[in-house]
Amino acid sequence: MGQKIVIVGGVAAGPKAACRVKRLMQDAEVTIIEQDTLFSYGGCGIPYYVSGDVSDESELRSTSFHMVRNKDFFKDAKGVIVKSGTRAMAIDRKNKTVQVEDVASGEKSDIPYDSLMIATGSRPFILPIPGADLDGVFTISDLHKAIEIKDRIARQKVDKAVVIGGGAIGLEMAEAFKDLWGVETSVVEFMPQVLPRIVDKPFSSMLTKHMRDNDVDIFLGEGAEEIIGVDGKVTGLRTGNRTIDADLVVMAAGVRPRSEIAAEAGLQISPMGAIVVNERMQTSDPSIYAAGDCVEVMNLVTGKKAYAPLGSLANKEGRVVGDNMAGIPSTFKGCVGSFIMKAFDVCIGATGLSLDVALAEGFDADVALTAPSDRAHFFPTEAVVCFQMVFDRRTRRVLGVQGFGPMGDGISARIDAAAGYITMGATIEDFGNLEMAYAPPFSAAIDSINALAYVADNLCDGRLRKVGIDNFLAWMDDFSAEPEWVALDIRHPNEATPCVEKFGAGKWVAVPYNEIRKRYRELPTDKKLIILCDAGTRSFEIQSFLNSVEIRNTLVLSGGFSMLRRIGIDWDPA
Amino acid sequence: MGQKIVIVGGVAAGPKAACRVKRLMQDAEVTIIEQDTLFSYGGCGIPYYVSGDVSDESELRSTSFHMVRNKDFFKDAKGVIVKSGTRAMAIDRKNKTVQVEDVASGEKSDIPYDSLMIATGSRPFILPIPGADLDGVFTISDLHKAIEIKDRIARQKVDKAVVIGGGAIGLEMAEAFKDLWGVETSVVEFMPQVLPRIVDKPFSSMLTKHMRDNDVDIFLGEGAEEIIGVDGKVTGLRTGNRTIDADLVVMAAGVRPRSEIAAEAGLQISPMGAIVVNERMQTSDPSIYAAGDCVEVMNLVTGKKAYAPLGSLANKEGRVVGDNMAGIPSTFKGCVGSFIMKAFDVCIGATGLSLDVALAEGFDADVALTAPSDRAHFFPTEAVVCFQMVFDRRTRRVLGVQGFGPMGDGISARIDAAAGYITMGATIEDFGNLEMAYAPPFSAAIDSINALAYVADNLCDGRLRKVGIDNFLAWMDDFSAEPEWVALDIRHPNEATPCVEKFGAGKWVAVPYNEIRKRYRELPTDKKLIILCDAGTRSFEIQSFLNSVEIRNTLVLSGGFSMLRRIGIDWDPA
Repeated sequence: MGQKIVIVGGVAAGPKAACRVKRLMQDAEVTIIEQDTLFSYGGCGIPYYVSGDVSDESELRSTSFHMVRNKDFFKDAKGVIVKSGTRAMAIDRKNKTVQVEDVASGEKSDIPYDSLMIATGSRPFILPIPGADLDGVFTISDLHKAIEIKDRIARQKVDKAVVIGGGAIGLEMAEAFKDLWGVETSVVEFMPQVLPRIVDKPFSSMLTKHMRDNDVDIFLGEGAEEIIGVDGKVTGLRTGNRTIDADLVVMAAGVRPRSEIAAEAGLQISPMGAIVVNERMQTSDPSIYAAGDCVEVMNLVTGKKAYAPLGSLANKEGRVVGDNMAGIPSTFKGCVGSFIMKAFDVCIGATGLSLDVALAEGFDADVALTAPSDRAHFFPTEAVVCFQMVFDRRTRRVLGVQGFGPMGDGISARIDAAAGYITMGATIEDFGNLEMAYAPPFSAAIDSINALAYVADNLCDGRLRKVGIDNFLAWMDDFSAEPEWVALDIRHPNEATPCVEKFGAGKWVAVPYNEIRKRYRELPTDKKLIILCDAGTRSFEIQSFLNSVEIRNTLVLSGGFSMLRRIGIDWDPA
Repeated sequence: MGQKIVIVGGVAAGPKAACRVKRLMQDAEVTIIEQDTLFSYGGCGIPYYVSGDVSDESELRSTSFHMVRNKDFFKDAKGVIVKSGTRAMAIDRKNKTVQVEDVASGEKSDIPYDSLMIATGSRPFILPIPGADLDGVFTISDLHKAIEIKDRIARQKVDKAVVIGGGAIGLEMAEAFKDLWGVETSVVEFMPQVLPRIVDKPFSSMLTKHMRDNDVDIFLGEGAEEIIGVDGKVTGLRTGNRTIDADLVVMAAGVRPRSEIAAEAGLQISPMGAIVVNERMQTSDPSIYAAGDCVEVMNLVTGKKAYAPLGSLANKEGRVVGDNMAGIPSTFKGCVGSFIMKAFDVCIGATGLSLDVALAEGFDADVALTAPSDRAHFFPTEAVVCFQMVFDRRTRRVLGVQGFGPMGDGISARIDAAAGYITMGATIEDFGNLEMAYAPPFSAAIDSINALAYVADNLCDGRLRKVGIDNFLAWMDDFSAEPEWVALDIRHPNEATPCVEKFGAGKWVAVPYNEIRKRYRELPTDKKLIILCDAGTRSFEIQSFLNSVEIRNTLVLSGGFSMLRRIGIDWDPA
């Protein structure tokens, strides 16, 4: 018998490493230790199991060729032993053993290893508020919880649900409750936006609007203060502002690395509690590897270690562990943090840094925004999408891209292309020339991501002067916020004239795009002109022209009305 | 008045450069010279106009905000003068003038320039065969031809059409004829596959099968020898093998650069007739720029100049011309040749080099193929896709990626991500870690492009030994082609047993994937085992295991039955 490989944790990174190392070293004895009885499942599929898109939980534990990944499967097909229902208690690094306990019997034993992998994953953060232990309060920590939630809904025990946390899992669960089951659903998010740190405000606002349009209540900037119950059962959630009735509360307030066993064994742990590993996924003990939600990884944009608990990364890291255990010096260099999410009929995606994060990290960051067609504008399935590029003004390096559009793979296409490019350190100019495959059913001749780079290029070189969306919306709420501003609406008169009538010619001037060159002398010159069109593109053209006739006190609203409508303004009479 | 900018050619690169330079230098006098009366149109949209997806030709000449890009539009909105119906006859470089002729009146005049751009595009290659001048024979050279074709079909003058040329335009036209109008349609391609040099044989075969399944006849390896007519009207096409009746013949046999005016002016021209430009799109005369289908560009994979007549590149190049004319030193470094095409319910895409081209270019090239799920296998809309990676064995650099799958943006997502990565010189290992945004509705935790890189990695390191598809199909046609081969079918018995019954136990052995570890002693050891599963993944696992029990005489069919079925085998009884 060859080397003894022991892997603690059987969900994503663990099984991937186990199968890979066994393939590479068939004589190795590979053992997975897993405290749960259900393992090797697609945790990211839980919202789709709860919604009913996936009818049976076993599908989440199956291969693409429809075999359930149970103990027999691992033994027979993979040659890997799974000790499920077995908890790893401690690591004895000197003697190279893992002390384990049978969860059912309490029986303890030691398992020797030559190489060990810690893939203990993460646990949901439990908010320290009263009522967290009431019946009907759930986290999405494992498949058992998911089964119980779905069972309660299917037995019609749930009329009203509250999700605490507006991150991806929380929003996906909210969609599952509402869309398939018609449960009255609310989301409570402590931060002033959903998906904080993942996308910036305009994009989170587009998502929030779409979810509200689909009858999910979303309360932003509200902390959950108490979960209320009667007779031990949850009846509602109290925030700083209100009490929301609920039969079911899901806490989706983020996750924390499960690193206790590593810490107790004296392995190096990061300040935020994740296991520290090198590019080969080795911990501070070279015969112990770690991967998945329990480790920190390099953020390839900031060059700093970060916590990125994503199933796709866990699999990549797991393969690198398997390789290295077998003597192949593969590396996992880090991540840029690609993200994508379905929400009813739309999707939202991001990669790299948001503007908020980029600024906090000290970049000289700015943002370009555009709202182009997702394919040739004459193709029947064309739709408007919104994209944003975060870039560093000094180096012109692209730091991140965000996208929002109809459900489908069109946003993925841009986010994925951007992710690879950002990994390689691409600049705005690189993105301008990024070669998106073009045919009218798939893209525009100038693809939305190229168009986005052009906006960034014009911004970066000072050719495009823009107004911030927040400032613009504040002015629309109350013109006195910027008394010197006047809107210059260059859309078709059918769209612009109603705005002039509503807001008055002192605040809203309408000259069509193609008449400005003839009629620019009509424009007020003692005011700042806020140039408005549908996407921002024509506005930039007009700004460029007005410069040449010495009307320089102008700003462009990037993304224009296409973006405003998705954010959900209620004042456009057009 | 500022500089005089003259641009010859008004379809894609020309108008892009004109508008860009005018925005940057508002005092410039920018003039487009265009021989046609219709200009600034999306030529790639012609098949969709002919099919009826786009109802009116003016939509191809409109902006996304529904203004027709006619002379007035260019003048009023863009500040650009278009002299349409005006042919550029010659360039006088010494005096910096362009001699032009009014097409209608024949009147000649000289237009002076400070900077000149040649954007004369391409012309269709006219096959030198008899009958090319018959009524009913068309090329897709401009919008007038498209209008006339559609008009004939709409007036029900076309029952049968033949397309000469199985490139993208030919196939898109064939779909247009068949899908929307029900015209009996054939495609004749001289090469032994459609999309030659763009994709390799397996992928062209998948596309051919799908088009044939949709009742488009495709004749491969057949040259068009004569177009037959009666009374001056086309009645059919004669190839080396047959005569096909037709009321309409479309010649789509490739395009050639229109570079005569540049050649006559003494500018440097490539051996294949394209205008030579540097990264700033300057010709050998620094005050003359060129862009679009009339120039050659750097292929970023081979490092050699190549001809890449694509509308998306024309726009990028045009912007670079505009920048440089205005003193901004932008560059267009070249292309990798991204390609995507819709065909009925599928799409096919490619970027970088095909295996054929890579080998011809002298790379130590090999190919990895896989047929995974396009998203989480448990997600309802999941479908099998086929991907291929061309790589250099010595450097491990990825040279190209091809994909085939259901119509949508899922193939684009992988092709686009690959294009950016290939541009940056990414290796197989980079592709293994390429961070595709993951959620079950969009991708698998191990995305298909990561899985593809893993196959390439295993191949490159000699861990995976594969059989070529052509060799395998030849053996299936006639077992005597490889008398020592035996298929090892590891699929479910429901799938494998019928094959054993059909082909006999001497040629077809069935042991399920998850029983091999127990039953490998049943396998014949005096034969070469060709391991077969659905995608190739399980076959590799089994090959790895069999190595360890000293059964090394095995080969894997990458892509497995999922790929075979798409190519269109007729012998699988399962």
